[in-house]
Amino acid sequence: MKHQYVGKTVPRVDAVSKVTGKARFVADFQMPGMLYGKVLRSPVAHARIKRIDTGKAKALPGVKAVITWEDVPRIPYCTAGHPYPDSSRRDTYILDNKVRFMGDAVAAVAAETREIAEDALKLIEVEYEELPVLVSPEEALAEGAVEIHEGTKNICGQHQFAQGDVEAGFAASDYVLEEEFRTPIITHCSLETHVSLTYLDENDRLVVITSTQVPFNLRRIMSQALEMNMKQIRVIKPHVGGGFGGKAEVVQEPLNAVLTLKTGKPVLLEYTREEEMVAGRTRHSTVIKLKTGVTKEGRMLAQSMKIISNTGAYAGHGHAVVYSIGSHFAVHYPVPHFSFEGISVYTNIPVASAMRSYGASQLNFAMESHMDNLARKLNMDPLEFRRLNAIKEGEKDPMGYFVNNSYGLAECLAKGEELSNWKTKRETFAAAGANQKRKKGIGMACYCYETTAYCGAEEMSAAIIRMNEDGTAVLYLGSAEIGQGNDTVMAQIVAEEVGIGLEDIHVIGVDTDVCPYDIGAYASRQLYMCGMAVKKAAVKCREMIVDFAAQLFDTIPANLEVRQGWICDKLSGNRLITVKETVWKAHYNMDRPRTFVAEAYHGAKCNPLSYGAVFAEVEVDTGTGKVDIIKLWSIHDCGKVVNPQLAEGQVHGGVLMGMGFGLSEQLLIDPQTGRTYNNNLLDYKMATMMDIPELEVAFVETSEPSGAYGNKSLGEPPCISVAPAIRNAVLNATGVEFNEAPLTPERVLLKLKKAVNG
Amino acid sequence: MKHQYVGKTVPRVDAVSKVTGKARFVADFQMPGMLYGKVLRSPVAHARIKRIDTGKAKALPGVKAVITWEDVPRIPYCTAGHPYPDSSRRDTYILDNKVRFMGDAVAAVAAETREIAEDALKLIEVEYEELPVLVSPEEALAEGAVEIHEGTKNICGQHQFAQGDVEAGFAASDYVLEEEFRTPIITHCSLETHVSLTYLDENDRLVVITSTQVPFNLRRIMSQALEMNMKQIRVIKPHVGGGFGGKAEVVQEPLNAVLTLKTGKPVLLEYTREEEMVAGRTRHSTVIKLKTGVTKEGRMLAQSMKIISNTGAYAGHGHAVVYSIGSHFAVHYPVPHFSFEGISVYTNIPVASAMRSYGASQLNFAMESHMDNLARKLNMDPLEFRRLNAIKEGEKDPMGYFVNNSYGLAECLAKGEELSNWKTKRETFAAAGANQKRKKGIGMACYCYETTAYCGAEEMSAAIIRMNEDGTAVLYLGSAEIGQGNDTVMAQIVAEEVGIGLEDIHVIGVDTDVCPYDIGAYASRQLYMCGMAVKKAAVKCREMIVDFAAQLFDTIPANLEVRQGWICDKLSGNRLITVKETVWKAHYNMDRPRTFVAEAYHGAKCNPLSYGAVFAEVEVDTGTGKVDIIKLWSIHDCGKVVNPQLAEGQVHGGVLMGMGFGLSEQLLIDPQTGRTYNNNLLDYKMATMMDIPELEVAFVETSEPSGAYGNKSLGEPPCISVAPAIRNAVLNATGVEFNEAPLTPERVLLKLKKAVNG
Repeated sequence: MKHQYVGKTVPRVDAVSKVTGKARFVADFQMPGMLYGKVLRSPVAHARIKRIDTGKAKALPGVKAVITWEDVPRIPYCTAGHPYPDSSRRDTYILDNKVRFMGDAVAAVAAETREIAEDALKLIEVEYEELPVLVSPEEALAEGAVEIHEGTKNICGQHQFAQGDVEAGFAASDYVLEEEFRTPIITHCSLETHVSLTYLDENDRLVVITSTQVPFNLRRIMSQALEMNMKQIRVIKPHVGGGFGGKAEVVQEPLNAVLTLKTGKPVLLEYTREEEMVAGRTRHSTVIKLKTGVTKEGRMLAQSMKIISNTGAYAGHGHAVVYSIGSHFAVHYPVPHFSFEGISVYTNIPVASAMRSYGASQLNFAMESHMDNLARKLNMDPLEFRRLNAIKEGEKDPMGYFVNNSYGLAECLAKGEELSNWKTKRETFAAAGANQKRKKGIGMACYCYETTAYCGAEEMSAAIIRMNEDGTAVLYLGSAEIGQGNDTVMAQIVAEEVGIGLEDIHVIGVDTDVCPYDIGAYASRQLYMCGMAVKKAAVKCREMIVDFAAQLFDTIPANLEVRQGWICDKLSGNRLITVKETVWKAHYNMDRPRTFVAEAYHGAKCNPLSYGAVFAEVEVDTGTGKVDIIKLWSIHDCGKVVNPQLAEGQVHGGVLMGMGFGLSEQLLIDPQTGRTYNNNLLDYKMATMMDIPELEVAFVETSEPSGAYGNKSLGEPPCISVAPAIRNAVLNATGVEFNEAPLTPERVLLKLKKAVNG
Repeated sequence: MKHQYVGKTVPRVDAVSKVTGKARFVADFQMPGMLYGKVLRSPVAHARIKRIDTGKAKALPGVKAVITWEDVPRIPYCTAGHPYPDSSRRDTYILDNKVRFMGDAVAAVAAETREIAEDALKLIEVEYEELPVLVSPEEALAEGAVEIHEGTKNICGQHQFAQGDVEAGFAASDYVLEEEFRTPIITHCSLETHVSLTYLDENDRLVVITSTQVPFNLRRIMSQALEMNMKQIRVIKPHVGGGFGGKAEVVQEPLNAVLTLKTGKPVLLEYTREEEMVAGRTRHSTVIKLKTGVTKEGRMLAQSMKIISNTGAYAGHGHAVVYSIGSHFAVHYPVPHFSFEGISVYTNIPVASAMRSYGASQLNFAMESHMDNLARKLNMDPLEFRRLNAIKEGEKDPMGYFVNNSYGLAECLAKGEELSNWKTKRETFAAAGANQKRKKGIGMACYCYETTAYCGAEEMSAAIIRMNEDGTAVLYLGSAEIGQGNDTVMAQIVAEEVGIGLEDIHVIGVDTDVCPYDIGAYASRQLYMCGMAVKKAAVKCREMIVDFAAQLFDTIPANLEVRQGWICDKLSGNRLITVKETVWKAHYNMDRPRTFVAEAYHGAKCNPLSYGAVFAEVEVDTGTGKVDIIKLWSIHDCGKVVNPQLAEGQVHGGVLMGMGFGLSEQLLIDPQTGRTYNNNLLDYKMATMMDIPELEVAFVETSEPSGAYGNKSLGEPPCISVAPAIRNAVLNATGVEFNEAPLTPERVLLKLKKAVNG
């Protein structure tokens, strides 16, 4: 079937407003009498608050409220903006009489200016009773360690599963390799920090304008944390300057709300970059043990994985990330025998939570490094080794979480092999010998990745389309545009199915007062889930319009179809009337005027796997340890591509994020005090546009039967396999196995020297 | 059937926000960079604009735009915020090169402050070429009169109809009375003048925050006048400080929009009271000739009516008001032979248009005065004379506009008779003799009145209910809360039908981006039309909820029912689960989560008649001519009353408005120059709370089969029969027939003297 809008690159619906600076982000909302919020943060990583004196701060002119743990509801909540039910224990209070990491919130101020609010913070006197600081999971799990959250033994979550007989599998193998991999704490670095503006509307309802991915989940959690019913809370998501999972968290809104409830005034609470990088959210650092048994022909027989995840001071999405790691572990390289053990540990460091790929980046770095190490031991081409063992077309997920009804992995591998000129380069680089100062290498990695939200939680999208009298339309979405182009692709679907122009559609993004329920920008689900809801609503709309046209032309709907804005006779193809004119006539039909509103929801539980591969060519400077990327090939099977330019944009961003994870990014925390050293963008080395290498993006378009147009996930996948591909290219270049990310020059140089010196 | 919410007095949903001053009206919206609009008004009543020089005005610092007819689209539109199609000719330009009444818009300014804008007006130089000024319809219709609108012969509209043979009817009568009645120009005197705020949103869409009764009609007309599609225009109706028909007009919004389009800035355009009373809207003044033939027993055989209506400089709702007069004329006192002739005439005076009762007040003053005069000639009790001739139960509208399926007129008359102690007073006052200085009298009048919008135009309402996850709900309305309590009664219906509490419902009033289509606060239709849409949506919602509950309890929906917030087993009455918990469970049902959204529209064409009667006891000071109202009884059959307190409030307001029309209000216009003398609330004598007499309100609750709960119109009716009831009481007191309203002391005194002096 030929589409007019779907599958085409069309301009973003927010393009003009964004390039002209008219698009409004939270901090652009100014309200009369608005106050500025600031948070007093703990200078110690673990302590009880013995005394807080806010007297001097309150006395400062211009200060309207100073609140401490004594002023807030004593209701624990889970900060994960997770679909229902909560992903983790309810371990957080809006403010508590205990601090659990250096930077934890102690008190908050609302004042007439930012400066006054900052001055007020300095006037708050706090007496801390310090507690032992636990930075590593090992310390936290040690016998007799102080409990960061009472009754937890510092375990945020743990689970295990197995299939077959993994020990028997190892015994039956010709070769068994056991290794440990480590991944760093990194952080989202959204251009826009966490920021929200709360106020009371004329009915004293709480309005929360916030930079969030999950407006409805956030409303549910606010409702619980503040003991208000949902009708009393309105959440508005304006334009969002990046989320990447960090804004699938309820980091500050309840505190912001309390400042408004205490003062009756609008309060803007905007994190500084330095605050954001400590009190925002991070990606869990992990220690992953992988053990694999293979036959001498390279066939994997058994595999076990043990992972320790450091969740920091509060759970956030917590152990759900390790759950996701476990589920993906079991499906990528199916073996007859496998076992998994995962644990998430509380420590006194900044809070880890959801971040783009939700654990798959950590898993993939370990797994794909391990695969190359294994291939090397077996003296096999790592690409061939993967071909032999990876999930095949039609092969089922042994755990049953995912479906594999549209399979493009083999083709992704083939395309990468071809585009990167894999075989020739492997041979050439190997032949170049070991003595060059700048060593060339090529490596690759691949992934499979889910589409929808975490299994066991609610999965739902809805959409409403309302036709104006003149045939233009309003599309109401609960799914969140956070920069990725959500609103644009949804409008494409409406244009496609209703038969009006893209310019005829006004998209109303998330306002919980106005938009239908949707769990939001979570997983890589929106085009898949909400796209289906939009399609259903649009089809309903078209059917109603065609039905009325059939009355006009004294025929039956089955004889008509919509083509390029016209309702046509199906047989002859004759154009009878435009869709727009039909809507006008239906609306102003005096006998039985009618308005076309179509609502649809999509709640199906189906989680299809996307696939992809990254190939990387690098040059390693053996004198400095610096890894230069010569070229990257990023190939993805995300099913059908609905908007090629937006899809490519997703890949570009994901590649950069993967590069940072692989080469330079890590939040450095003092192992004794828990202090974060580099919570700023000067010392924290994220990859920027200056670092982007030559990059070739390709799509393998399978057709996912459960997707509205054969589409499945692409939001998160592009960041997954970049780091291990680079790491494997470095291995190819240097012969050295780096089992810890990131491959900073320092780390590379040290290890290269160690390898040379034995 | 017993109702929990419907039929009960519950507090208004906007009560708290209004009494605390939090409720926002248009002028409460402040926007960054907002400009203030002002309009230059014509100092002459009829002229061509030969030259306008805006140079000096534009040069004034702080002035951002000065626009004249040369700067606006040359698209004529109809200012009536009428449902589709337009009620009158498209005779208005945003600005024109001709002025047609003293106060007509000549130019407009947008400036940084109101003061600068006012100063700028004075700097605009205009040269007028004056034209003959036509103030009365007689002048305007005279042979050779200059045409105010080209090609119209100054006729805005005219129509006639007849049934039977009216001349034969007169010939067969024992007695024929022919009289002329006159009604004044009055004006709405809404507490809030016309005011709007326009701005461009981040997508350069035009947003119009305005004090309107008809947001969707206004959008349609703006779309036409500005040549923009509907998607590009958003109309928001915040709280409205009174409409009474004057805000069923698009008086200023297109001009306001042009100021925003020229400057790119938000512009607030707020009429002063003095402007409002000239450039707002008025009630058509009329000259009504009534001729009636009766038998000596008092049975009416034939009746003819001729009406000349002065529509002023532009049509506005124009001749539609006379149409409405004609349709009501034919139904109130059915006679075998009747004829009607109506004409609406353009003149050079302020624009007349819709006003509460839409012509029925003029008709009723003439008809009910005429009825008393007739009864007097026949020496019959005027109440008995009406009983004999008025429409009876089941009697059909000869013209077929209205249905009479719920009839309470006879009971209204009986109740008024009883409450007012009619017979005794008629006897006592008559016996008191003619020589007292203060003469007592009792009089009455009655009416029948339509419910929905004018026949021939679109009639549609829609409503959407969205259940939040916790069972609270949002109700989206296109019908307009303009102070009458619309949002409250609609919320009552949702609470009633869905089975949640009134406090669980958040009502979102009219925002064309958000709310479903509705033709607005037009006629007395909202509770009747939109109430039905709300009921349908609420029933759908309940059915979906009950359907899910049936699944939960493994039964069929037919076995369940909702009682007081619970879903109960129908047979045993056992409470199974609350409605709210059911919604939560459905929403977070992992297998098939679902959200409950129900939309319904109501477009049925049925226009039921409400009935009522007013009885008035007065005392006339023969020395000053002042009429004091001792007591009023206001009795109405509006079908079932949904909220008694709100209904009584409607009656209170209507009575006051009717008193003003009968006793004191009239806009005085110089017959030579067309100048309005008393366009301020000091010289224009509206009735206020200080003037309210002892007032007894009663309802005769019939059950209208086409109403959601047996209800029909009450919005307009209470103002209709007040003036003639007072007038008839004065007749009873003095024996003098006053055939022109208002009965000012001056007029009463003059005529009393004339009567005494012969």
